[in-house]
Amino acid sequence: MPHIITKIERAAAADVAALAPFGSATIHEAQGRLGALSSDLKPIHRDMRLCGPAFTVASAPRDNIMLQLAIHYAQPGDVIIMSAGAYSEAGCFGDVLGNACLAKGIAGVVTDTGVRDTQELIRLGLPVFSMSVCIKGTVKETLGQINGDIVIGGQVVRPGDVINGDADGLVVVKREDAAEVARLSAEREEAEAGFIEAYKSGRTIIDVCNLEAVLTHKGLTTDL
Amino acid sequence: MPHIITKIERAAAADVAALAPFGSATIHEAQGRLGALSSDLKPIHRDMRLCGPAFTVASAPRDNIMLQLAIHYAQPGDVIIMSAGAYSEAGCFGDVLGNACLAKGIAGVVTDTGVRDTQELIRLGLPVFSMSVCIKGTVKETLGQINGDIVIGGQVVRPGDVINGDADGLVVVKREDAAEVARLSAEREEAEAGFIEAYKSGRTIIDVCNLEAVLTHKGLTTDL
Amino acid sequence: MPHIITKIERAAAADVAALAPFGSATIHEAQGRLGALSSDLKPIHRDMRLCGPAFTVASAPRDNIMLQLAIHYAQPGDVIIMSAGAYSEAGCFGDVLGNACLAKGIAGVVTDTGVRDTQELIRLGLPVFSMSVCIKGTVKETLGQINGDIVIGGQVVRPGDVINGDADGLVVVKREDAAEVARLSAEREEAEAGFIEAYKSGRTIIDVCNLEAVLTHKGLTTDL
Amino acid sequence: MPHIITKIERAAAADVAALAPFGSATIHEAQGRLGALSSDLKPIHRDMRLCGPAFTVASAPRDNIMLQLAIHYAQPGDVIIMSAGAYSEAGCFGDVLGNACLAKGIAGVVTDTGVRDTQELIRLGLPVFSMSVCIKGTVKETLGQINGDIVIGGQVVRPGDVINGDADGLVVVKREDAAEVARLSAEREEAEAGFIEAYKSGRTIIDVCNLEAVLTHKGLTTDL
Amino acid sequence: MPHIITKIERAAAADVAALAPFGSATIHEAQGRLGALSSDLKPIHRDMRLCGPAFTVASAPRDNIMLQLAIHYAQPGDVIIMSAGAYSEAGCFGDVLGNACLAKGIAGVVTDTGVRDTQELIRLGLPVFSMSVCIKGTVKETLGQINGDIVIGGQVVRPGDVINGDADGLVVVKREDAAEVARLSAEREEAEAGFIEAYKSGRTIIDVCNLEAVLTHKGLTTDL
Amino acid sequence: MPHIITKIERAAAADVAALAPFGSATIHEAQGRLGALSSDLKPIHRDMRLCGPAFTVASAPRDNIMLQLAIHYAQPGDVIIMSAGAYSEAGCFGDVLGNACLAKGIAGVVTDTGVRDTQELIRLGLPVFSMSVCIKGTVKETLGQINGDIVIGGQVVRPGDVINGDADGLVVVKREDAAEVARLSAEREEAEAGFIEAYKSGRTIIDVCNLEAVLTHKGLTTDL
Repeated sequence: MPHIITKIERAAAADVAALAPFGSATIHEAQGRLGALSSDLKPIHRDMRLCGPAFTVASAPRDNIMLQLAIHYAQPGDVIIMSAGAYSEAGCFGDVLGNACLAKGIAGVVTDTGVRDTQELIRLGLPVFSMSVCIKGTVKETLGQINGDIVIGGQVVRPGDVINGDADGLVVVKREDAAEVARLSAEREEAEAGFIEAYKSGRTIIDVCNLEAVLTHKGLTTDL
Repeated sequence: MPHIITKIERAAAADVAALAPFGSATIHEAQGRLGALSSDLKPIHRDMRLCGPAFTVASAPRDNIMLQLAIHYAQPGDVIIMSAGAYSEAGCFGDVLGNACLAKGIAGVVTDTGVRDTQELIRLGLPVFSMSVCIKGTVKETLGQINGDIVIGGQVVRPGDVINGDADGLVVVKREDAAEVARLSAEREEAEAGFIEAYKSGRTIIDVCNLEAVLTHKGLTTDL
Repeated sequence: MPHIITKIERAAAADVAALAPFGSATIHEAQGRLGALSSDLKPIHRDMRLCGPAFTVASAPRDNIMLQLAIHYAQPGDVIIMSAGAYSEAGCFGDVLGNACLAKGIAGVVTDTGVRDTQELIRLGLPVFSMSVCIKGTVKETLGQINGDIVIGGQVVRPGDVINGDADGLVVVKREDAAEVARLSAEREEAEAGFIEAYKSGRTIIDVCNLEAVLTHKGLTTDL
Repeated sequence: MPHIITKIERAAAADVAALAPFGSATIHEAQGRLGALSSDLKPIHRDMRLCGPAFTVASAPRDNIMLQLAIHYAQPGDVIIMSAGAYSEAGCFGDVLGNACLAKGIAGVVTDTGVRDTQELIRLGLPVFSMSVCIKGTVKETLGQINGDIVIGGQVVRPGDVINGDADGLVVVKREDAAEVARLSAEREEAEAGFIEAYKSGRTIIDVCNLEAVLTHKGLTTDL
Repeated sequence: MPHIITKIERAAAADVAALAPFGSATIHEAQGRLGALSSDLKPIHRDMRLCGPAFTVASAPRDNIMLQLAIHYAQPGDVIIMSAGAYSEAGCFGDVLGNACLAKGIAGVVTDTGVRDTQELIRLGLPVFSMSVCIKGTVKETLGQINGDIVIGGQVVRPGDVINGDADGLVVVKREDAAEVARLSAEREEAEAGFIEAYKSGRTIIDVCNLEAVLTHKGLTTDL
Repeated sequence: MPHIITKIERAAAADVAALAPFGSATIHEAQGRLGALSSDLKPIHRDMRLCGPAFTVASAPRDNIMLQLAIHYAQPGDVIIMSAGAYSEAGCFGDVLGNACLAKGIAGVVTDTGVRDTQELIRLGLPVFSMSVCIKGTVKETLGQINGDIVIGGQVVRPGDVINGDADGLVVVKREDAAEVARLSAEREEAEAGFIEAYKSGRTIIDVCNLEAVLTHKGLTTDL
């Protein structure tokens, strides 16, 4: 396998667009409680959101040469997602590369190592999700892989899969499931809206969630 | 002991109200440096504050059935506080249950596991304190206990004890001590205001804190 | 060596002023990727910045007597930096001492343990960097050292060295290198501005970063 | 409450003796999956075992004055168990105090901080369970409490409750439940011996554990 | 996909046998520094070794129903490897299931959660690798998957891939690469034996590792 | 400063020999509770001990080129001690380099990253202290420094300082203090032997440790 694969099959743009409005928790539930990345990966600002096809990078810890190359080869709308050994004491990405991403129309950057220049990145408005914020510089020594399957945050991410993230964290949706998961997410959101209305109208949680039968079956006891 | 106890002795409402204005650090100091929960438990937004009688939940990790039941049985003003195994990779609470809490007048939610839908929870204005933010779904399988004594953040919390929290963290006050601790907190705050005035007026810290004698006793040496 | 040394050689005020505008990441890179403190140490609010000569404190964990003394002996513009055992479950500093610092003109406080009263400290506008936010009280029992060399965040800090911090973290610059590092920081910032302009004007990252030759040498392969 | 309580109600000696042969995991299961201390607390050698009534100590982190006093006041057969803030970077107990314990007939020592002189402690044969092994010295400054209820490893331990530990970890049994839990432990061990015999005789796990019906109910699917 | 897949393609027995004599570090290097699982996963005794085709299990945290089923369906020589959420505070496997494994001829068990009854498991001689030792019981509530691809210790493991483990940790080899990796491991071991002989005969490391040219190229400086 | 300094001032051989018999905890106490490295650094086998002058290495994380060079330039009896970023997921040292060390008469190796081939290293009898055991390979890309001052385990270690380690951990003694600390260690050991004798002869800990007066001063209360 070459170090850099440029020809990947991305999730359909319509499917990405359909998933974009939903929160990461909703999508995770809608696809059967699958695809959640570790809660260690969070946006550098809570208002950041991203949704786009994964442009994957496998990097040595504390080395950002493949990330630079990924910015070169990625397409507008891609989410560059880089596995770099879950190492918090390195800052692989900052405002210079952030500007390079913006110039290319990259939708966001996700990594399991650190980033820096966060105030400037927030000002630029580029969504960045990382495991840490760290000023320590990286090297450009070891070749890795672009657009192989990667493991990040305990999940497999394949090139072209959809990455969706918000303040709560990140979820991956397989590219072939994106349309269906968007549909299920809408269903779930509608159902949740119904629950919320029920609570606002004064219905009880045991009633709304239909807990009575379950609890009898499990042998719940009370002091009532 | 039944799984659910509904009849608990809550701290007097007047005592809860008396404690509410004070910060968690002040209360912790005022009651003799007791009752501080682990610093791992923090609000999902730094402006959140809560103060109310504990409605306690003991849950299996990654299971929120008892939390749903607690929302059902808690009373307005209660703080639902749930021990769930100090497990960060689960999101037991989100905006749907958040709305259920608001509909019931719950004063806030505290747990040693994760929560999700944090942007919406912040918008709702419900104070939520947790060990993590995580999108991973929970199950409804294992019965636990409502309103037994629990251990959370290294502290014992009994039903009806007062839970006070702010950006700095959480403190528990025994229900029978609430009035006295409120009084001591006011005293401490007054004393601190005095210290602050002293500093502003140019007095030195050795003078204000009366360090001279202590340090002589301990054998402090300087290059002066 | 006495417990308290008051006579220290500080970095020249002009050099401190020259370093102040630069971010911690820039300075770290400019001096050859040296001096970065652990990413565990962060400001209690992301807008906080500090730059000043180190007034060093070595303290027992969970003890703030030396910190009080440091506030007494420090000079306007100093950054009080205290090594206290990398212990997160203690709050050694709050709004009372924060006011004492402001009254003295202290430029900021850095420690590898916890602080509290963070809402008030933010309101006061005193830059505070810590490893945690924790309400647990400290004692005043064990003498330590003021203005010896300390180890904090994995770095040696000597009295008078320059401490620079922002949302990304902290960096230390040896007092004798401050002028040169400020010069190199300016150079680096200028170079980075050039890179950013290049990206904005549409030049590619391989071109801007001159990656072609490097990658050929390393044997990079692609599917193109 | 005085700092030191010497008059405590210990679990009956016969009940302690009845619990002693069982492993900590067996006892934890036998009493309904309760009482397990955090897996962070382990013996300093895997062959160590202990079982005895808890002589509880609440200590400031990095301070062993109450531990010394506990050795003075404990009785032969007691397990001294000290909560000291879950702090790994302190060594509160070593071979000198180990000899003092042996001279008194103490059954073992448990703490959520560090110990040292481990080679000598192993040679002495005193069971010691801790969160870490650390050479850093402790102070004797802050009074704590002997024989109040403590929280350690996420569990409440009351004076006189039974502490049982082995290579797998530690479990606490309420003193009033000790006899019944010993009986249930024996039952469980017998049942487990039956399972083991069944496996050895070639019976399958689905058969032995009666999984068939459960799985049909849950909707298990296979490729068979 | 059904919950349980029983028909998997295992690495050839000859290839497994060829890999068995090599240490995990050797294999990791021989296949190009790939396949190493996180260093958090270790044998419960340093003398344990295992090598066999992976029989994979994906489980909910703190739930061992799929592990029981895996023991039922696995074949002699298989290594049961279970991803269970990297959760340390649960003990999913002990001496009863250990006996069931031995009765079936299972080659070993690997998991990213806890195990218990370790003294007895060591006595039985079954190789067990885990993230922790913990007595806390698990439930049998949530169905997972047997013989799908799993992520464990940061690596993808597919059914039938070879798992090799020793005191240093674990490595996975793709089933189709097993023969080639065994060959490369032998080559590496031979080369290392040569290096060792060279050192024993007094040759210097700069000479043996051919460091001279590299270092000149990198600009190494010395005080000689 | 050149990358490699070979001419260092080592602690006197007689002083190293005088310190060798003492445990690390004893030395730490004897020199005033100074010099203890983090408890994260431990021998790979509990019977390992080392004592020798530090031959210091500062390395990039996950890079062992400077360690190889250190083996080349170190002298018999030296302890090679390498700071490498406190990174657990790399194995920088194994049996090949272990043989190189033995051939050179190196007294031991200490690092704050991982090592591998531990079974073979134990068989070889070379004392090795590390933060982890990890099979992941390292690179040889980034030059560091040999025999500059380093920070490791939270301590400054200068070339030629004495490193003493055993099952309990590691301590550094400044080369110029070595003789005096050896003398104080002997004194302390003698005093401790006296305490132990006192306990064996039935004297109480309050008597032996002279606690009475201290406690009266602190206001201890009991139920007696």
